[in-house]
Amino acid sequence: MSLTNHKFLLAARPIGMPKRSDWTYTEEPVGEPKEGELLVQVQYISLDPAMRMWINDARSYMPPVGIGELMRALGLGVVTASRNPRFAVGDHVSGLFGMQEYALTDGRGVTKIDPKAPLPKYLSVFGMPGMTAYFGLLDTGQPKAGEMVVVSAAAGAVGEIVGQIAKIKGCHVVGIAGGAEKCRYIIELGFNAAIDYRSEDVKQSLRKHCPEGIDVYFDNVGGAILDAALTQIRRGARIVICGAISQYCNTGPIAGPSHYLSLLMNRATMKGMLVLDYADRYAQAGAEMARWMAAGKLKSREDIVEGLATFPETLLKLFKSENTGKLMLKLT
Amino acid sequence: MSLTNHKFLLAARPIGMPKRSDWTYTEEPVGEPKEGELLVQVQYISLDPAMRMWINDARSYMPPVGIGELMRALGLGVVTASRNPRFAVGDHVSGLFGMQEYALTDGRGVTKIDPKAPLPKYLSVFGMPGMTAYFGLLDTGQPKAGEMVVVSAAAGAVGEIVGQIAKIKGCHVVGIAGGAEKCRYIIELGFNAAIDYRSEDVKQSLRKHCPEGIDVYFDNVGGAILDAALTQIRRGARIVICGAISQYCNTGPIAGPSHYLSLLMNRATMKGMLVLDYADRYAQAGAEMARWMAAGKLKSREDIVEGLATFPETLLKLFKSENTGKLMLKLT
Repeated sequence: MSLTNHKFLLAARPIGMPKRSDWTYTEEPVGEPKEGELLVQVQYISLDPAMRMWINDARSYMPPVGIGELMRALGLGVVTASRNPRFAVGDHVSGLFGMQEYALTDGRGVTKIDPKAPLPKYLSVFGMPGMTAYFGLLDTGQPKAGEMVVVSAAAGAVGEIVGQIAKIKGCHVVGIAGGAEKCRYIIELGFNAAIDYRSEDVKQSLRKHCPEGIDVYFDNVGGAILDAALTQIRRGARIVICGAISQYCNTGPIAGPSHYLSLLMNRATMKGMLVLDYADRYAQAGAEMARWMAAGKLKSREDIVEGLATFPETLLKLFKSENTGKLMLKLT
Repeated sequence: MSLTNHKFLLAARPIGMPKRSDWTYTEEPVGEPKEGELLVQVQYISLDPAMRMWINDARSYMPPVGIGELMRALGLGVVTASRNPRFAVGDHVSGLFGMQEYALTDGRGVTKIDPKAPLPKYLSVFGMPGMTAYFGLLDTGQPKAGEMVVVSAAAGAVGEIVGQIAKIKGCHVVGIAGGAEKCRYIIELGFNAAIDYRSEDVKQSLRKHCPEGIDVYFDNVGGAILDAALTQIRRGARIVICGAISQYCNTGPIAGPSHYLSLLMNRATMKGMLVLDYADRYAQAGAEMARWMAAGKLKSREDIVEGLATFPETLLKLFKSENTGKLMLKLT
């Protein structure tokens, strides 16, 4: 009985928001693993803001996905055939399996998972978003107990974890999110305050909630919200540049922070971080976050959409700020 | 015999380049020091890019100069009368004496100078520009021997010192300056290469002179040059935000660096610095720079214009990039 693999290839470099016509949805017979290879049936695929960067023809930390190539994606799956001694049939694995149902791989970059929590958690809190939040906040942001921490896209996969870790570390935490529902959610998580950028003047609300200024600003969005935060930083503030989702679908150049001289006035630091640099510490971070989860101090939400075929539309939830928590596809 | 003090007051908040009509040039009789005060005859007045910020009605590290108030300025002078036990007639002093010929002061913020070098050096290499270069480069930029250091406004009061200290520390140094004459000057100072932003494509020239990227970028200018540098930084680069002279006379908002996400791609840092934070280490820095000067490793140039009355026009040399080295007025 031969299996069929469905997959998405990049058809064209999108201008602005990616459209369905920027993708080719295609199928092929599933191959057999050669010596050293394994076959993975993909169960969950992570949808990440970084995907929008991966499909630009620009120098970055990874080469861009080429036209006609399989779309790059992180996923979770189960090994269904193996001629690689490191992996056995039935193993749970994560890796860059791509936007497809079955992945043949030589095992490089593939990690075995021993699932003690529900599988989707290994793409959220125990996956890239959780690691990004953990190292971005603690290593780059260096928050101290009693400090004021502000995070944007606070109901997103990274932001929700950043805010909760900052609370665990004894900080006062303000989240910026889009819409009343997300703001309610982060308050439930224990954030001290929530700013709805859709209905509030962010600068004024930051002044209200952070009367002595911001010590750590964790930025996932860029644009006007980064600029508003820059006007409210305190002397010696640290700004963590993690992403700029408001800018990724621009058709023109991205907007630079016009208030960046606030760094000078406030002797402040703006620093970029990439989670890949911390690979050798993921296990330690995961163990600590698992203890926080067991103690009820850390929660995460997953926004799970069924069906690989929905990829082009589901991806846009990120850029329209329609997801809460970690957005992923579940393959059926 | 009564003396007359000429001075400049701020008449209006300038829009763009300050015009003569933004100032009031006025005179008054020189007063007598009261108990605890001293009278300083000002000999040299420092003209600084920061002056353009001091006259904006904006929150900053110092309150703005008010309309009708004496223009703020650093100066050097000699004590001509004193009822303050810390100062005697004949003492050389520096301080925020303002844009005037005589200053009555209670001595707060006034520093005695024991001039072993020509007086103008105490406004350049031994003054704020020298201290800014020293601490901005060494403390904020953290250059290591063998690294690539790039500095903008490289023939200016801060830039010329930054480049020479970077050379002393064993770095490869590229300066960006406006015009062939300034580029010749910095090559004479020992810079490895000079980029003339008036006749060259800065991004292309940076790629040529820094084929492996920039480790430390010391920015005095902002705008398009900061953006060009951001495209060429190396992993772990440090960007020192010292000033943004290209932006101070904008009539609209200042241009933010649209390539700031290069900080993320390169795990790089952008940090603001203000020299005032290092006041307790000025003496140590001055002593070290004096040794470098004595050894012929550090030089500075002063651009001295005679006459207080020329202030409104002379100030514009900074914003038109017409000065080489430290711009100052000599009072006659």
